[in-house]
Amino acid sequence: MKKFINNVENILSESLSGFGKAHADILNVSLSPDFIYRKNKSSKPKVALISGGGSGHEPLHGGFVGTGMLDAACPGQVFSAPTPDQMEAAANKVHNDKGILFIVKNYSGDIMNFEMGADIIDHEHTTVIVNDDVAVEDSTFTTGRRGVAGTMIVEKTVGSLAETGASLEECKNFGDHVNKMTGSMGVAFTSCTVPAAGKPTFELSGDEIEFGVGIHGEPGRKREKIRSANELTKDIIESILEDLKPDNNQEVLLHINGFGGTPLMELYLLFECGQKLLEKNNIKVTRSIVGNFTTSLEMAGGSFTITKLDEKITKHWDTPVHTAALRWKM
Amino acid sequence: MKKFINNVENILSESLSGFGKAHADILNVSLSPDFIYRKNKSSKPKVALISGGGSGHEPLHGGFVGTGMLDAACPGQVFSAPTPDQMEAAANKVHNDKGILFIVKNYSGDIMNFEMGADIIDHEHTTVIVNDDVAVEDSTFTTGRRGVAGTMIVEKTVGSLAETGASLEECKNFGDHVNKMTGSMGVAFTSCTVPAAGKPTFELSGDEIEFGVGIHGEPGRKREKIRSANELTKDIIESILEDLKPDNNQEVLLHINGFGGTPLMELYLLFECGQKLLEKNNIKVTRSIVGNFTTSLEMAGGSFTITKLDEKITKHWDTPVHTAALRWKM
Repeated sequence: MKKFINNVENILSESLSGFGKAHADILNVSLSPDFIYRKNKSSKPKVALISGGGSGHEPLHGGFVGTGMLDAACPGQVFSAPTPDQMEAAANKVHNDKGILFIVKNYSGDIMNFEMGADIIDHEHTTVIVNDDVAVEDSTFTTGRRGVAGTMIVEKTVGSLAETGASLEECKNFGDHVNKMTGSMGVAFTSCTVPAAGKPTFELSGDEIEFGVGIHGEPGRKREKIRSANELTKDIIESILEDLKPDNNQEVLLHINGFGGTPLMELYLLFECGQKLLEKNNIKVTRSIVGNFTTSLEMAGGSFTITKLDEKITKHWDTPVHTAALRWKM
Repeated sequence: MKKFINNVENILSESLSGFGKAHADILNVSLSPDFIYRKNKSSKPKVALISGGGSGHEPLHGGFVGTGMLDAACPGQVFSAPTPDQMEAAANKVHNDKGILFIVKNYSGDIMNFEMGADIIDHEHTTVIVNDDVAVEDSTFTTGRRGVAGTMIVEKTVGSLAETGASLEECKNFGDHVNKMTGSMGVAFTSCTVPAAGKPTFELSGDEIEFGVGIHGEPGRKREKIRSANELTKDIIESILEDLKPDNNQEVLLHINGFGGTPLMELYLLFECGQKLLEKNNIKVTRSIVGNFTTSLEMAGGSFTITKLDEKITKHWDTPVHTAALRWKM
C-alpha cells in the first residue's frame, strides 16, 4: 500500500487537522470527538444542517461546511459511520434556535448511529435520508438504495433554503423532495484500498469494470468488459431516466462525479456524452457540475447524477455558497 | 487501458466540448484550432494572458481561464505542446490593446511552439517562463528546470495584476518575480497511462516511489522505497527551502498539489505535515491551497509548492478570481 500516511491510526486526525488549517477562514475542526463546523455562525436563527458519514469520500462532507450549505459534518473513520458522540457534540455547537436537520446517506451503520446521536440531543431534530443510487436495491451495507453523489445536491439546495430562515419541517420536506428528484449510477475501473485493510477491496482484471458500483466498492449490477464512453453513458443514463421518468423538455442538473482516480479530462468527456444523449431524449441540461465531489478514495471510475429541476430547486442551487469545495457568487 | 473514452483520436475535442458546455457562464471553447477563452472580455484595455501546454494536467490551464486569471489557454494533445496556430488564434481573439503575455512552462516543445506562435502574431507580446521544479536540472523534455504546480500561482497573481491595467512590462516582470519566489517538488507512487500509448509511462513496484518526479512521469532524483509522510515531507521541503533560502519568519503560500490519483484525505494530511515542519523552521504559512490543480492524468502522488510572499504577491493572490477551477470572493 503506497499512501501519504504516517500511521494508519492517525490518518483521520492528521488529515482533519490539515483541513482545518488550510480552510481556517471558513471552518473550525474539533478533534475527539471529530467534527467540522462553520466558522461564522449565522446571526439569525436558522435550521442547523449536520451531515456526516465515513471518511474517504472527500470533499464530501467536510468540504461542504460553510455559508449556504452545511453547519457541521461528522467524519467517521475511513468508510465507517461516525459515532453518536460526534453528532451530539456537533449539534450542541451549531444549533441555532430552529432545530437540527441531519442529512444522512442510506447506509445501515450511518442510519443507526445518527439515530443514536439524535436520541441524545436536546434540540428539536429530524433527518433526511438520501438514497439516490438507482443501481441496486439492498447492498453490502444498505437496506434499500444507497446514498451517493446526489447527497451534495441535497446539501446545497437545503442549505440554501435553511439560510432563508425556513422552518425545520420545510427544510426536511424540501430535502426529501430533492432526493426524490435525483438519481445516480456509477461504474468502477479499479478498486480503492482502505488504509486499515492495506489491500484493494476487490479485484478487477485489466479490461473489467463494475457496472453500478457503490462508493465503498460494493457490487453493482454486473461485472463486464470495458466499453466506450458513449455506451456506458447510454446504459447509465437510461437506468436513471427509468427511475426519474422525466417529462418531455424536462430541465435537469447533470452532475458528473469522479470517484477519485479518474482524470478530469475524462469526466468532462463523460459530461459531453451525457449532455448529448439527454438532448436527444428531449431533456435540457440547464445546470451542470463536473468534478471529484463524492469519492471512494483513489478508485478510478465515476458516476452520473441527474436532478429534475423545478423552480425551487433551481433557485436554491443557484444561490451563493462558500465552502472549501464548492464556491460561487460569494 | 480502462478510460472513459470513445476513441483515442477524439479525446481532446470531446473533453473540450464538454468543458465548454459545463462552464458556459465563464468561457467559450474554440475547436480547430483548439483554445479556451474568457466569455466576458474586459471592457477596459488590459494585458491579455495566454497560457497552454499539453493536455492531461487539468484543471491546468483551461480551468484557470476567467476573470482575474487567464484570458485564454491553448491545450495540446495529451502531454504534447500546442501548435503555433492555436496561440495565433487565441491571441487574435483575446488581445485587448495592451499586448499579450504568454505564460509557458519550461518544456522544450512548449517553448519552441509558443515562440513560433509569438512570431506570427501582430500584437506586442512577451513571455514568462515558469521553472519552479527544484528536483532536477535538465530532464526528458526540458533544458533547465521544469515548470510544474507553481504555474497556477504565477497565473493567479499576474492575472490579478493585469486586471488593474498594468503594462505588459510590469506583468512580465511580476511574473518572473513570482516564479523566482516559488519552488516545487513532487513524488509519484504510480505512473499514468497516456491514452495514445495505451500503457503506463513507467513501472514502479509495490513499495517503490519516484522522488522528484516530473508531471509527465519524467525521472526525478531517485527511485526509492516508500517512506512515511513526515519523512517525505522533510526531504521535499528541505530541497525547496535550499533553493528559496527564506528569511527567518518568512511568510509563505503552501500549495499541496495532487497528481490526480491520490485521495484528498492524504493531500490534507501532507498539508498538516508541511505546515508543522515549516513552523518548526520559523516559516509562517499564511496562505494555503490544497487539491488537484496540476495533474498528470491519474498518477498517484503529489507535490509541495512554496511561494515566498511579499506584500504585492499576497495582494494579488487574495484578489477575486472566477474560473472553472479557482473561485473566490466573486
